[in-house]
Amino acid sequence: MLNDRQPARLIKVGIVGYGNLGRGAELAVTANDDMQLAGVFSRRDPASVTPQLETTSVWPMDALDDFSGRIDVLILCGGSKDDLPRQTPELARRFCVVDSFDTHARIPEHFEAVDSAARAGRTTALISAGWDPGLFSIQRVMAEALVPGGDTYTFWGRGLSQGHSDAVRQVPGVAGGVQYTLPSEDSLEEVRSGRQPQLGAAQMHRRECFVVLKPGADPEEVRRAIVDMPHYFADYDTQVHFIDAATLAREHGAMPHGGRVVRAGKTSADHAQVLEYGLKLDSNPEFTASVLVAYARAVARLHGQKNFGALTVLDIPPGLISPLSPAELRKRYL
Amino acid sequence: MLNDRQPARLIKVGIVGYGNLGRGAELAVTANDDMQLAGVFSRRDPASVTPQLETTSVWPMDALDDFSGRIDVLILCGGSKDDLPRQTPELARRFCVVDSFDTHARIPEHFEAVDSAARAGRTTALISAGWDPGLFSIQRVMAEALVPGGDTYTFWGRGLSQGHSDAVRQVPGVAGGVQYTLPSEDSLEEVRSGRQPQLGAAQMHRRECFVVLKPGADPEEVRRAIVDMPHYFADYDTQVHFIDAATLAREHGAMPHGGRVVRAGKTSADHAQVLEYGLKLDSNPEFTASVLVAYARAVARLHGQKNFGALTVLDIPPGLISPLSPAELRKRYL
Repeated sequence: MLNDRQPARLIKVGIVGYGNLGRGAELAVTANDDMQLAGVFSRRDPASVTPQLETTSVWPMDALDDFSGRIDVLILCGGSKDDLPRQTPELARRFCVVDSFDTHARIPEHFEAVDSAARAGRTTALISAGWDPGLFSIQRVMAEALVPGGDTYTFWGRGLSQGHSDAVRQVPGVAGGVQYTLPSEDSLEEVRSGRQPQLGAAQMHRRECFVVLKPGADPEEVRRAIVDMPHYFADYDTQVHFIDAATLAREHGAMPHGGRVVRAGKTSADHAQVLEYGLKLDSNPEFTASVLVAYARAVARLHGQKNFGALTVLDIPPGLISPLSPAELRKRYL
Repeated sequence: MLNDRQPARLIKVGIVGYGNLGRGAELAVTANDDMQLAGVFSRRDPASVTPQLETTSVWPMDALDDFSGRIDVLILCGGSKDDLPRQTPELARRFCVVDSFDTHARIPEHFEAVDSAARAGRTTALISAGWDPGLFSIQRVMAEALVPGGDTYTFWGRGLSQGHSDAVRQVPGVAGGVQYTLPSEDSLEEVRSGRQPQLGAAQMHRRECFVVLKPGADPEEVRRAIVDMPHYFADYDTQVHFIDAATLAREHGAMPHGGRVVRAGKTSADHAQVLEYGLKLDSNPEFTASVLVAYARAVARLHGQKNFGALTVLDIPPGLISPLSPAELRKRYL
């Protein structure tokens, strides 16, 4: 059993970027016995970066050249807006990589750019790993294939929304605040019943804001400015709670998130079938990093099989992200 | 869009065995535009078999020889106890096949037998498709790889249990009856909280029986014989409801089932992550058949790539069970 978990050679992983996602990847790599962390690569001065673990080395980005052949997979922990569109194709020329590119509409062009680079460099590059895109995409594709006659619904939350929190903080009179997206329990129960209702995003979610006022700001004015904000809040059932700065710091510093993909359909006139995949995450970045790290294992294996080019989670057999052998998986999990 | 769903060549499917699962497969094949049903193959006299759809042909088993080269995948709908251990290896020598072999402990030996046959015959054979083993196995393997530090729990139900229904019907004084397995809501909520409790099967489930008494039978005596039955009921919270034969026929003729695989683990000291996959099925055989049919698509494609031998759902990329192309899937589902 133990031998089965200890492959002949450890998978050597590098982390590129050391924000919340990179910090999560550092923890995730060390949670996997078959992996070894070669180091964190940062654009910042390494002396200014303090890793969570004493054993983690920090290197400047250009030190990557020295690691050629000594790293099996790079986990790219930059942002989808400014970093990854440039970084993933560039690094895929020299290294196997995994990224969490999550700008849904631009995934096809990102895929093409990374695919060309990886084919040219004879590397394996997996893009858009994470939970949405990622695990939720897997669930959407599989559930639709399994029950062709049906509807798929995605509920997000309870989760901290960065974009909506930013919008709240820009309201005059607001000193600080966060916004949580929550699924509408009524809509969720209706979908779970198999009735296949027609639902818009605003019927499927509600929004909850925790706001610290600036001295002298009028709470009712601030509340109205938030709940009436077009696009962000106006269409939603939005609640605003006023709290003090100490409470904000103490109770709203974590980054929980999650959601559910539910498919409801019929296999015959009387028989509804409901499939549901749900995540409840205390830490969104730590979980997303765990997904990247598990898929790094699949990337290392596929590269060993000379499977070059870009891939997504939809191309990866489930067993390939597990440290166990196919025979062990059949014996223990089927 | 429509073109994307209509590949150049339809996948020709045959169904072997025409019980509840075979009937479900008949419906599932017709729900998929890229498939064509070559026919149902039965050990019974074809004249005595009435298919659900007028367009379905029924053939005797030995007519299969005439279909060599005219069927892409056979969906094997026999039983795991007596049919599949013999039938799957035998047919895998001549045809690509999918089965739902579900005797968990014997899966490794079944895999070996089918693998030898499929390699010899240069066919592709997928075993143990369905939801458990099958979709639940995928979830167990993936969730454990994604969150290595954690516990995985399987809750079954609400579902009709064939074995427990048989046990109820053998109690003296019982004229008829069914047993449903239900998840314990308290245990489920505790697992979902991320607390990782230690739970045995009897703490995770309760049992509900609907029983028709024989004339003159004593209800309390029957109730006690059921709830005290070792292995089947004694360890569980078991409820017995007495109903009349008409109610049994009217309200308990369907075969609902389902369940949930929940993994709870931590990615750091304070951060619990909970992953849940759940199915709520009005018809267990229709859904299981839908799984077999979707995986038949993957088998046909893998055979086209000369991927010969035995496989399980753990070896199949999620995108391969969808009728859509990889590019279309990336565009629409990631």
